[in-house]
Amino acid sequence: MSGVLAPVVTPFDGGLRPDARRFAGHCRWLLDQGCGLAVFGTNSEANSLALRERMELLDSLVAGGIDPVRMMPGVGTCAIPETVALTRHALDHGVGGVLMLPPFYYKGVSDEGLYRSYAEVIERTADERLRIYLYHFPQMSAVPLGVDLIGRLLRDFPGIVVGMKDSSGDAANLERVLEAFPGFALFAGTESLLLANLRLGGAGCISATANINPAAIVDLYQGWRSAPADELQAQLDAIRQTMQQYPLLPALKTVIAHYADDPEWDRVRPPLVELTAEQGASLIAELDALGFAMPGVGCGGGAGPSVR
Amino acid sequence: MSGVLAPVVTPFDGGLRPDARRFAGHCRWLLDQGCGLAVFGTNSEANSLALRERMELLDSLVAGGIDPVRMMPGVGTCAIPETVALTRHALDHGVGGVLMLPPFYYKGVSDEGLYRSYAEVIERTADERLRIYLYHFPQMSAVPLGVDLIGRLLRDFPGIVVGMKDSSGDAANLERVLEAFPGFALFAGTESLLLANLRLGGAGCISATANINPAAIVDLYQGWRSAPADELQAQLDAIRQTMQQYPLLPALKTVIAHYADDPEWDRVRPPLVELTAEQGASLIAELDALGFAMPGVGCGGGAGPSVR
Repeated sequence: MSGVLAPVVTPFDGGLRPDARRFAGHCRWLLDQGCGLAVFGTNSEANSLALRERMELLDSLVAGGIDPVRMMPGVGTCAIPETVALTRHALDHGVGGVLMLPPFYYKGVSDEGLYRSYAEVIERTADERLRIYLYHFPQMSAVPLGVDLIGRLLRDFPGIVVGMKDSSGDAANLERVLEAFPGFALFAGTESLLLANLRLGGAGCISATANINPAAIVDLYQGWRSAPADELQAQLDAIRQTMQQYPLLPALKTVIAHYADDPEWDRVRPPLVELTAEQGASLIAELDALGFAMPGVGCGGGAGPSVR
Repeated sequence: MSGVLAPVVTPFDGGLRPDARRFAGHCRWLLDQGCGLAVFGTNSEANSLALRERMELLDSLVAGGIDPVRMMPGVGTCAIPETVALTRHALDHGVGGVLMLPPFYYKGVSDEGLYRSYAEVIERTADERLRIYLYHFPQMSAVPLGVDLIGRLLRDFPGIVVGMKDSSGDAANLERVLEAFPGFALFAGTESLLLANLRLGGAGCISATANINPAAIVDLYQGWRSAPADELQAQLDAIRQTMQQYPLLPALKTVIAHYADDPEWDRVRPPLVELTAEQGASLIAELDALGFAMPGVGCGGGAGPSVR
């Protein structure tokens, strides 16, 4: 897999239940913009979803005709049996790959322990269709994945461990990993490092803000060898920096709610908290001032037939 | 609840499946020593267990005749629906209380978000038997629970939020919490702070090393007003300090395997890694030198009839 993927935000209804219809609508809109679907990532609030909720949402997307080949669902949990269950379920739907956090409760664990975690999941899953993208997000998981560990996994599981999402925000780490493993499908965790990552030989980006600004990010991906690439990158950065002044995940939902004219989007599950009305108004004013828009968003979600 | 509880270590068979028979045997031995059962804590590798595995283990303990009133199962997960499911299941078994981690994937969350998490679990559980002990373990969960949050929960959910396990290892935090909330059932997360906590008005301790040294810790709890209390505390500290030179959780299992003469105990799930043979030999030599023993351990576990 390569290109631009969004960790698709998960809408909730008034009872904080996942809203499969709006979720599918947003996925369709993202695909129309040329953006792949990293459903059940950090910005999807996947770790606030029950195992069964994740499976049912994936079932409903596929039943609704959304192409699983464009999906890279997050499947990493704290417990090996649950990671295996999610992985098998995703593979049975024919997904293009899976994004796998390490077990993230125990801190200060050794590379040997992390290696055994991934190896155990691979052996138990026992499916030749398995394509794992490791998920390195030290600020959130507090369980970093270093070059030694990646190297050992690539050596022992070639063709299965195929890439990584690096959400560290550290350009030097992209360089370190791609120097060590040329051809490794490395995704930056933010579009602010998309051009840098592509110039280093990386595969693209999986970025929260691809939920709201997918077409422009895809434009940079497709045109990164062209003259105005640095200018495109600067335009993306302006939007990203505006978003990052607010708690990013609830800010994404506020932005979708506004531009889709669908206030139902503006809900998060605890422990997250939605933006205040003041924060929301200020964020929208800043985006409007940048000429930001989300053409077509919400049309496939708020009004279409249910997929369940 | 009060006194000394062990976060009961969870034995695994050769396929890394939970071993319900040895688990029940160890629980019986702990109860015989006067120690309560904080099953499914951090040192139980609970966060490496699937939801279903936790439920089945609790079912098997209760079916095996182990008194649920002496149990304080860990029920806190990242996802509200799963925390509610574990809590309801535990209450239906008649447990004395539940130990509840905050959702621990998302970091840097607000007190408002944590308050909403606990409030949502309490409202959805909707059971007047609910007695919650909060679980403050900033070094592992990376989601601390501060005095403001505790105060708000105590005010809004009196008789439901009744206590806390403080695993910060910070004596000043015990003092701060007990000064703010006299009568709050505060458990130190280590027996090294047991005497200090009792002198401050705390309820006892929930400590990893209670898995191997329960009787001596219970002695201090029962005799803390007596003259030799400081001496008893010093003896406990010597054992604890010896254990803490090694990765604590696998060290507990190595110690049980040795003194129960049952090598089956010496397994952990990834991402943890068992001690090396050299580490194990060195640890046992140090404990032997301190006159350490575990009389009767393993008799109810390794040889008795299965409870399932």
